[in-house]
Amino acid sequence: MSAQKKSSKNELRISAQDINTFATKVLLKNNYTKDEAKITAKVLVEANLRGVNSHGISRLKRYVDDVSSGICTPGKNPKIIKETPVSSVIDGQGGVGPYIAQIAMNISIAKAKKSGIGIVSVRNSNHYGIAGFYAEQAAQKNMMGFSSTNSAPMVVPTFGKNMVLGTNPLAYAFPSENKKILLIDMSTSVVPRGKVEVHERLGKDIPFGWATDENGETCSDPKRVLSNMLDKKGGGLLTLGGEGEIFGGHKGYGFSLLSEILTAGLSQGAFSPDTYQGQGKICHTFQSIKLDLFGSPNKIKKHLSNFLEYIRQSEKAKGQKRIYIHGEKEFELREKLLKSQITFDSKTTETLYSLSEKFSINLK
Amino acid sequence: MSAQKKSSKNELRISAQDINTFATKVLLKNNYTKDEAKITAKVLVEANLRGVNSHGISRLKRYVDDVSSGICTPGKNPKIIKETPVSSVIDGQGGVGPYIAQIAMNISIAKAKKSGIGIVSVRNSNHYGIAGFYAEQAAQKNMMGFSSTNSAPMVVPTFGKNMVLGTNPLAYAFPSENKKILLIDMSTSVVPRGKVEVHERLGKDIPFGWATDENGETCSDPKRVLSNMLDKKGGGLLTLGGEGEIFGGHKGYGFSLLSEILTAGLSQGAFSPDTYQGQGKICHTFQSIKLDLFGSPNKIKKHLSNFLEYIRQSEKAKGQKRIYIHGEKEFELREKLLKSQITFDSKTTETLYSLSEKFSINLK
Repeated sequence: MSAQKKSSKNELRISAQDINTFATKVLLKNNYTKDEAKITAKVLVEANLRGVNSHGISRLKRYVDDVSSGICTPGKNPKIIKETPVSSVIDGQGGVGPYIAQIAMNISIAKAKKSGIGIVSVRNSNHYGIAGFYAEQAAQKNMMGFSSTNSAPMVVPTFGKNMVLGTNPLAYAFPSENKKILLIDMSTSVVPRGKVEVHERLGKDIPFGWATDENGETCSDPKRVLSNMLDKKGGGLLTLGGEGEIFGGHKGYGFSLLSEILTAGLSQGAFSPDTYQGQGKICHTFQSIKLDLFGSPNKIKKHLSNFLEYIRQSEKAKGQKRIYIHGEKEFELREKLLKSQITFDSKTTETLYSLSEKFSINLK
Repeated sequence: MSAQKKSSKNELRISAQDINTFATKVLLKNNYTKDEAKITAKVLVEANLRGVNSHGISRLKRYVDDVSSGICTPGKNPKIIKETPVSSVIDGQGGVGPYIAQIAMNISIAKAKKSGIGIVSVRNSNHYGIAGFYAEQAAQKNMMGFSSTNSAPMVVPTFGKNMVLGTNPLAYAFPSENKKILLIDMSTSVVPRGKVEVHERLGKDIPFGWATDENGETCSDPKRVLSNMLDKKGGGLLTLGGEGEIFGGHKGYGFSLLSEILTAGLSQGAFSPDTYQGQGKICHTFQSIKLDLFGSPNKIKKHLSNFLEYIRQSEKAKGQKRIYIHGEKEFELREKLLKSQITFDSKTTETLYSLSEKFSINLK
């Protein structure tokens, strides 16, 4: 079925390869170098393949706009500021997020190969896509991988009213048996802003405990929350654990701070409230730790896999059919979509066609 | 005011020093070596000083009982199984948790001093008290500190019915200005079991979203939850984020898995469901990372402290007076209680007097 046909129904269906090619060409027309365009297209399409559509090709326009607004300057090469056998601090020079992140992750893995562990902290970068994309690269090499990034401020701290924290994802990847990867990749807010936007589009209330209003109190009206967030009138997304301390909101707030410290703290870059001031100034961190520091990687993987299988096979809650291990849902969807096509919602489809027209690049 | 006087009201008030001396003497009468007794009394009293009473002196009887039941064997020296300049794997030989943990944390710090980073994973240990006690020791030395432990299985995975995970605390410590330490120390369940027990004692319902019943559905009856947990009839504590995925319960489940992997996974020890089978078999992990890998520790601490102050000073939610940074509440209480006395609830007081009588050790 051709993309053109489906677009009449406002939902583009297209193969991963084809949308990757399209995105690469669009980025190349916007000053991205070949390497920058290639890795950026890849990380965006990977998000769609895993069902994380908020971080997928729907962001392509933003990546393009960030060039014209000066938030992101393609063609910049990251600079190593400080280095030891187990660590690096990198200044991204305001360049392309996924490109800088990939270089930093490569350095982290290379250091771990030699020294057992490699920790890299990055400042002055830009949006880097899904955190798990980088963390899992270590896991493909019998290492534990970790990555985190800060972001525009969208999250309120426990008992606070203003957005002083990013959505600050933490991604942990571990190798397990049969080349499977356990990938825990999550924002430290209850939900990302995208979920509030979906509810607004559908005219549905959001659950109490996702976000707060202009008084800093939990609120079920997505329109009010989003408009307040845009105008910085108070309120924003709540941290994992929700409002106050009764359900552990202070714990999610702690995980959010952890991300700020490992990204902006260690690199001495911009904390979330100081990002997107002229330049993106986003900060990241990456870790790789060799499994064989602790024993035979195969034995450790077998030991872990047995435990994961025990969890999978344990009894289900009433009405539930399956207990998932982190990453399973995403990797299963990826396998399926690689063999078929990715479907983009009407809003994303519209944006893609407007980019196609603007830069004279066919979608298929 | 003497302890005796207060005990007539069933609430013992006693100085930190005096209860420490008492606990040390009790442990010495139960085969603990001097070093084991000293560190164990210290970590228990530290918990009370910080208001974490669930992990304080109320556990002294359990530490004593664990000796007679064979769960814990005092006098055992931990054995290094594998070692590199940045890592160790330690077998605790079934010995005393806080003693083994302190040795492991010391090794982690020593390795970080030399190599920048030290990661230690421990198997065959026992309950080690509050995780933050160890993590903060790195922060006192211009390092980032981390510690985690698994525990008896008390937590159900997302969509699951059975307790297959421990409460698995994660503790992260960072040095900030003026010798202050930012200490994020939290169980990865919504609440520890102790909070459910308090509600049961007070005859109060627990909030939906803390724990599940024998069908694996969220439940407000603490008696039912606790009795099911005891009899392993199904249900247990929920992970941070609560039931299902709507509020991010799968994220808390991910953090809980993270703890299992870093403790039992890396050390190839017992995952939570296999603990307390004859011996305790608890597993821990410890990390120390030198700040100066990334730049001047003073500059990094100043940079972080400015951000923390920005958060403190940001606007408060309606009805709230203060935004806390993690560890502040606990360290402020500690200062206060060190100058005055610790008050133990009637149940703990009763237990302490029975230990006092049994081992002929005066409480003051």
